[in-house]
Amino acid sequence: MKREPDNDLVVHDARVELAHGSGGRATARLVRSLFLKYLPSPALHELHDGAVVPIAGPLAISTDAFVVDPLFFPGGDIGKLSVCGTVNDVAMCGARPSSLAAAFVLEEGLTIAELERIVASMAQACAGAGVSIVTGDTKVVPRGKGDRVFVTTTGVGQVLPGVSVGPRQIRPGDHVLVSGPVGDHGTTILALRAGIDAGLELGSDCAPVAGEVMALLERIPGVHALRDPTRGGLAAVLNEFAEQSGTGFWIDEASVPVSPATRAAADILGLDPLQMACEGRFVAVLPAERADEALSLLRALPACAGAASIGEVVAAHPGKVVARTRIGGERLLDVFEGEPLPRIC
Amino acid sequence: MKREPDNDLVVHDARVELAHGSGGRATARLVRSLFLKYLPSPALHELHDGAVVPIAGPLAISTDAFVVDPLFFPGGDIGKLSVCGTVNDVAMCGARPSSLAAAFVLEEGLTIAELERIVASMAQACAGAGVSIVTGDTKVVPRGKGDRVFVTTTGVGQVLPGVSVGPRQIRPGDHVLVSGPVGDHGTTILALRAGIDAGLELGSDCAPVAGEVMALLERIPGVHALRDPTRGGLAAVLNEFAEQSGTGFWIDEASVPVSPATRAAADILGLDPLQMACEGRFVAVLPAERADEALSLLRALPACAGAASIGEVVAAHPGKVVARTRIGGERLLDVFEGEPLPRIC
Repeated sequence: MKREPDNDLVVHDARVELAHGSGGRATARLVRSLFLKYLPSPALHELHDGAVVPIAGPLAISTDAFVVDPLFFPGGDIGKLSVCGTVNDVAMCGARPSSLAAAFVLEEGLTIAELERIVASMAQACAGAGVSIVTGDTKVVPRGKGDRVFVTTTGVGQVLPGVSVGPRQIRPGDHVLVSGPVGDHGTTILALRAGIDAGLELGSDCAPVAGEVMALLERIPGVHALRDPTRGGLAAVLNEFAEQSGTGFWIDEASVPVSPATRAAADILGLDPLQMACEGRFVAVLPAERADEALSLLRALPACAGAASIGEVVAAHPGKVVARTRIGGERLLDVFEGEPLPRIC
Repeated sequence: MKREPDNDLVVHDARVELAHGSGGRATARLVRSLFLKYLPSPALHELHDGAVVPIAGPLAISTDAFVVDPLFFPGGDIGKLSVCGTVNDVAMCGARPSSLAAAFVLEEGLTIAELERIVASMAQACAGAGVSIVTGDTKVVPRGKGDRVFVTTTGVGQVLPGVSVGPRQIRPGDHVLVSGPVGDHGTTILALRAGIDAGLELGSDCAPVAGEVMALLERIPGVHALRDPTRGGLAAVLNEFAEQSGTGFWIDEASVPVSPATRAAADILGLDPLQMACEGRFVAVLPAERADEALSLLRALPACAGAASIGEVVAAHPGKVVARTRIGGERLLDVFEGEPLPRIC
């Protein structure tokens, strides 16, 4: 067995090889010269198979597998997305995200340069969101058994003292806020794949919103439910809330913010922006008497300048979401059955 | 858009389709009729994107992506493996595993029957290990962009009071214990892939060992380091310990337990059982004066009946692992450079 320096990846490797996933010296080289180069957490640098982090419970935990295609898109990439998506899910539990675990499934032949770009992007997103990647894992599958890179991130965070959010707390009369324009992420990805992005100023909204959510929870008591509208978009979140709370939702479609570029692209693609994924927005349901204060608070935060009040919770039509359309009619805002919009995230 | 009953998967679906991963009604049907059928955690049944669990810190967290090929093997399958592997990694941090997150990347066309078998196996493994899957995620990639199913599990647990284990605590004079025969898992998988398993009574050692590790930590104070020898096997763990502690390891190869079937298969394949993955064993490094008591304690536990004392930590040859061979010579027990042994786990 040859002994080689462990810390010089570039000299040895231009592409991911099966050996990088087999737990031997090549794996160690990949971890030390690439992952540790970008990810500063002392716990990660211990190179244990796990990490110990100083969280006092109760603990929120969320996991997401990211398989987005393409890997790089206006406004983000799979690395940034994998950090923001999980940070946001932890925040939606009413918790302050602190630590992430990251697991990679790499396809043999992925260029090291692409992997490096992704890891660097994760590191930057972590710094922006105030979280650390504390442990990880890397596997390699043969060519044709994967698609360049899949990343699964799992995040944990301590639930804010006294905070308990969940759809079962939703009550008729509650107001529904959204933190900004909806549908940007999913529309951008699908427009790219369809090749209709030229000339449209599309961009994913991919961003961490944990700071904004923490500000809301700390200053507005009694928020009933929070959710980030990812796959299935705003429509899916509202339908889940309606089903799980046994209430109905009434939405004023004209009040739902949609960026002009996303509206244009969605029109071309025949899609409803309200069913398209966001990756940097959240929906908050809260008592009517707190709604104005919450909206003012959100609009004062740069990331939520486009926040809007979009409707309310009603006792009528439990389990259903009804939207007043822009032309004054009403429509059932349903969840799509499964039109193939895969690999949005 | 058609409305369909959400809870009847079998009627609609025999194989995983792209729609099952797109976040709409088909995804909901898969989650409700398959995942929730087997996985009982109330937190999971909330169908939030995350879960809140009552853990008081400090917290151990570990993640692993499982891409094992084949999916089903003697002694286990990717589902059981994904639970045991992560449960064990949390235990190696000196923590009692409590909750898991599970993320699936499914290839279009996977049969629902296979997926169900895997999820049922995960549920059984969770029950055996005393843990719950509290949150999860499912993505679907097109045919040829994955390989049936990849599972990433992330586990959390509370570190036992007063326990702090890690390679930096290893000292010359410490003894090295292993909890049972090594190399069974990796050898079984490679023998299956090579088609030489017939006639050999091979089987993976895949099992949770958290209960045994907790018993050790609670009754033997001062354990210095713990690690489960997965990819890279015993050799990789000892080399990591040697490097990270700045000590040397001296191993008596004749004392290292290896099952006859695994030895026979490894001989045929030209592999060293000490470099082959285990998935239900652990290595403990502890002060010499505690070693006999610890070994007796382990051997009294059914899962660790084959535990053995295999060597000791020395001040000589720091960073290196030297084995006295069965024929009385000495060899450097190295980590392999990256012979392609991928997809062992």
